[in-house]
Amino acid sequence: MQKTLQRPLYGIIPPLVTPLLDNDTLDIEGLERLIEHTISGGVHGIFILGTTGEFASISYKLRRELTERTCKLVKGRVPLLVGITDSAFTESLDLAKHAANCGADAVVLAPPYYFAAGQPELLEYLQRIMMQMPLPLFLYNMPTHTKMTFAPKTVKAAAEIPGIIGMKDSSSDLAYFKQVQFALRDRDDFTFMVGPEEFMAEFVLTGGHGGVNGGANMFPKLYVELYQAARNRDFDKINTLQQKVMQISTTIYNVGNFGSSYLKGLKCALSVMGLCSDFMAEPFRRFNEPERKKIEAALNNLELY
Amino acid sequence: MQKTLQRPLYGIIPPLVTPLLDNDTLDIEGLERLIEHTISGGVHGIFILGTTGEFASISYKLRRELTERTCKLVKGRVPLLVGITDSAFTESLDLAKHAANCGADAVVLAPPYYFAAGQPELLEYLQRIMMQMPLPLFLYNMPTHTKMTFAPKTVKAAAEIPGIIGMKDSSSDLAYFKQVQFALRDRDDFTFMVGPEEFMAEFVLTGGHGGVNGGANMFPKLYVELYQAARNRDFDKINTLQQKVMQISTTIYNVGNFGSSYLKGLKCALSVMGLCSDFMAEPFRRFNEPERKKIEAALNNLELY
Amino acid sequence: MQKTLQRPLYGIIPPLVTPLLDNDTLDIEGLERLIEHTISGGVHGIFILGTTGEFASISYKLRRELTERTCKLVKGRVPLLVGITDSAFTESLDLAKHAANCGADAVVLAPPYYFAAGQPELLEYLQRIMMQMPLPLFLYNMPTHTKMTFAPKTVKAAAEIPGIIGMKDSSSDLAYFKQVQFALRDRDDFTFMVGPEEFMAEFVLTGGHGGVNGGANMFPKLYVELYQAARNRDFDKINTLQQKVMQISTTIYNVGNFGSSYLKGLKCALSVMGLCSDFMAEPFRRFNEPERKKIEAALNNLELY
Amino acid sequence: MQKTLQRPLYGIIPPLVTPLLDNDTLDIEGLERLIEHTISGGVHGIFILGTTGEFASISYKLRRELTERTCKLVKGRVPLLVGITDSAFTESLDLAKHAANCGADAVVLAPPYYFAAGQPELLEYLQRIMMQMPLPLFLYNMPTHTKMTFAPKTVKAAAEIPGIIGMKDSSSDLAYFKQVQFALRDRDDFTFMVGPEEFMAEFVLTGGHGGVNGGANMFPKLYVELYQAARNRDFDKINTLQQKVMQISTTIYNVGNFGSSYLKGLKCALSVMGLCSDFMAEPFRRFNEPERKKIEAALNNLELY
Repeated sequence: MQKTLQRPLYGIIPPLVTPLLDNDTLDIEGLERLIEHTISGGVHGIFILGTTGEFASISYKLRRELTERTCKLVKGRVPLLVGITDSAFTESLDLAKHAANCGADAVVLAPPYYFAAGQPELLEYLQRIMMQMPLPLFLYNMPTHTKMTFAPKTVKAAAEIPGIIGMKDSSSDLAYFKQVQFALRDRDDFTFMVGPEEFMAEFVLTGGHGGVNGGANMFPKLYVELYQAARNRDFDKINTLQQKVMQISTTIYNVGNFGSSYLKGLKCALSVMGLCSDFMAEPFRRFNEPERKKIEAALNNLELY
Repeated sequence: MQKTLQRPLYGIIPPLVTPLLDNDTLDIEGLERLIEHTISGGVHGIFILGTTGEFASISYKLRRELTERTCKLVKGRVPLLVGITDSAFTESLDLAKHAANCGADAVVLAPPYYFAAGQPELLEYLQRIMMQMPLPLFLYNMPTHTKMTFAPKTVKAAAEIPGIIGMKDSSSDLAYFKQVQFALRDRDDFTFMVGPEEFMAEFVLTGGHGGVNGGANMFPKLYVELYQAARNRDFDKINTLQQKVMQISTTIYNVGNFGSSYLKGLKCALSVMGLCSDFMAEPFRRFNEPERKKIEAALNNLELY
Repeated sequence: MQKTLQRPLYGIIPPLVTPLLDNDTLDIEGLERLIEHTISGGVHGIFILGTTGEFASISYKLRRELTERTCKLVKGRVPLLVGITDSAFTESLDLAKHAANCGADAVVLAPPYYFAAGQPELLEYLQRIMMQMPLPLFLYNMPTHTKMTFAPKTVKAAAEIPGIIGMKDSSSDLAYFKQVQFALRDRDDFTFMVGPEEFMAEFVLTGGHGGVNGGANMFPKLYVELYQAARNRDFDKINTLQQKVMQISTTIYNVGNFGSSYLKGLKCALSVMGLCSDFMAEPFRRFNEPERKKIEAALNNLELY
Repeated sequence: MQKTLQRPLYGIIPPLVTPLLDNDTLDIEGLERLIEHTISGGVHGIFILGTTGEFASISYKLRRELTERTCKLVKGRVPLLVGITDSAFTESLDLAKHAANCGADAVVLAPPYYFAAGQPELLEYLQRIMMQMPLPLFLYNMPTHTKMTFAPKTVKAAAEIPGIIGMKDSSSDLAYFKQVQFALRDRDDFTFMVGPEEFMAEFVLTGGHGGVNGGANMFPKLYVELYQAARNRDFDKINTLQQKVMQISTTIYNVGNFGSSYLKGLKCALSVMGLCSDFMAEPFRRFNEPERKKIEAALNNLELY
């Protein structure tokens, strides 16, 4: 039986990091701590196997194990969204079926990311995959990684396909996402979530539903409170809390000169905080001691915990 | 004598289109109408020779003539900002000196845009050009056209150079611009203006100073009122007015399949509205009749005039 | 027991298309015909599961089935190279082990293609994956799809890792590949293969070892003869044969306005020629009748069969 | 009177660096030495105000002065090509008229490079500018700097416009340039020149007409001999000389981590060789002592002078 998700879905849904002991082994205790930490912090859902969850770097076996374990640990306390992005149609579908069997609430899908398709092809792909999709689905726009964008008219057409219930945009291009929202202005059941935490508050202030923000792995309360402040139009609070978010963005995500500095910094911070291992799946590496020191200092300066 | 500009500068500053009769001739009457239209619409300044003003496509002679005529027509009623972006240092400086002689209030500079420089080179370039700069200067971030971005730390260092007083960001990446703002959070005299009108309100709601929005050529009152609504945190009004802006963004700027659809649509609409010629400088062409019909229909649907 | 591959490997190695009946079913008869067609055409090896083989779009089950069947059909008549590119380290390794068990001769690996790594990370990744790699490996440079390039110094360092025996470059940037070759000028056992068939002859004339050219699926003899002509410095023959290759490049690969026109055209032509099905894995679609007519006409104009 | 240029034009045409004493002053003696050095080295023409000539960074006054002086210094000994690329139609045309008045033989034009046009717009732009063009014109393809490519069909159409007599391609994408050549295979009067020196020999071996190679500023004889060897199909000589070119490419052009390493290295080497000043126009800087030492060592290792 398919569960009923609130439509639209509101709030803060952390894109959970995948705690790892080595390239093929989950840090199970870390996973449990992380889930309890975020849920007790008030998050409105959990999203596993996104970009922050290193979905593309870990084996299918591990993706399935993570899905199972997370379902069991979350126990329905908040909606669980599972990433099923893959370059192969069949693998995405199999991941979705597995997620449904485990009891997940929805899946999240970015375009096939090796050989970029055109917009008509992308729409047909969505139509076909939805014919067998066992769970509601969020589109995931991530052009830096997939080399393509869901055009606003593609999203508009996709939103007509039964089962497609929302979109997460990680393009950082708010003009684009406002165009998508405007194209779907008559669809008040369609969920719009924004990836970049730097402007989650602005997005929520004018009608966005929430944020899939990496920082909520570390400080779920901060992001939940910022979201609530935006819902309540409490500008003093927004200002205070957003300063913290910007501090995180410009320190913890900004150590070293890596394309993956965001992810390295986030995992390192979670390790410093005692939440989970900072091991990163191939081809990435955890921070060494000098960078870890910088993360420690950045965490201390935050005065958040 | 250098005039004193309000710091920070607030409000709506339209990036004026350059009305043309042919590739080398200003539409002088159109220019006058456009200036009166925008000033009477309440704009807080005027910016000529930006991307919307087709600065790069028109001759230096014409750029100088436009600067002179605009200064005379504006007559100090609002601050006048003049674009001096050029791939050649000397030409930028000469344009700045000419603008100062004409009585402009400030200049606006994007990075040299043929051969992209590195960040340290860009900072040194700014240091050197500011040594002879006769007017206060706004940085202009426009990565799609210049192939480079002002890194937040470059802006932070540039803001220490006397005379650099603000920044216009047309990257459409609000996470980036929030990082720049955060880096300069102690500089409450530094102006932050955003190019994309689709999220100008959001930007102003949380501390941005205003918008350099192309649509204000057509409907200055709309953008000024949206800006005021954002300043006043009047969400009902924001919502109503932003719907109009989004309608403009997704219709008038979205006819045909051109990289320059925004500019073609904007000039065409101004012509339909009787404000100025829609001639475009090389290598672009004005819309033909079928597209013009679509613009007319889009304007009618707006119910704004 | 690991087989011994000729070092360097010379000649034409078609990147085999994957004949499909539907998204999850091999066109087994088509596969057999294609293998016999190319081997009888004189090719010096066969490469399955490359970009042309739609590796990223088909399930792991199908990749394994294709590997097994191809090994059995090739029966050691020519070296068989198997693509193991994946965004997940473990999956690449499993595909390699499976290929070794099936009796393949070598594997081919592009960088993990979802989240682009830096050069030091890429080199470490290669070092780690080679520790368990059961077969010799060719690097596969494909920057349009993987969003990263093997820097010449990375290739130089990678060539020191036991088991890395060559490189295929599909960047189309011959200046780059000449730099890589120059960096390895002392390594006359290292194989350099070029993807784009348009300049395979030029590449071979000055020391390149051969081509992994898609057109050799259709016309293996043409490419083998062009390769031989380049080896023999027979310029009249090069000129005549290269005209055919250019005709293929500018007609068969150039129908419609798709990012995937090359692949659609190639599969369509193979279908017109009666070699295999033109079904394409998701998210792509085979050509419709109007485009197929163009392919038929282009094939007729070639006067090659 | 328009001079008659050989069609096609053959050989090595160095894109001359612009010797500068400061940002607005030519190094006149350096210019004279450089011209004598290259002409006595056997070059088949000289091209000023290309990317290597820092055309976009120097003032129009200086561009005109350079054109005049170069014409006088060359004295018709070899054809003189003058770059007229500009983002403004009128400025390009004025530069062309000035070049004609000075006695130049041809002009060279890349697309307007601030706001990228579409292919139909680009073709119309060429048609219009050629109506007033006083000299024969070479198209200049430079996508990294202009953000657009001349599509093969655009070149084919442009080649029908009277006065457009050839093309220089600096895309480094030889598959692309072979497609352009193939599209114009019936036009044996149309000149094809390649920018990247790394594969100039390959390009000439199969029908290309020559190279516009930066290294010919330093070592004109080397490039002329390599060109001749390619024309003569003397593979031993090609191999020997190309090794030197590759050594230049991977050392002199490869110091530091700058987007402009090529140009910095080239100007530095010319200064070390006593040919001209290494001053670079804004926003670039000459190499400091540590990098200059590396250039000196690289020059010594070349054993070329």
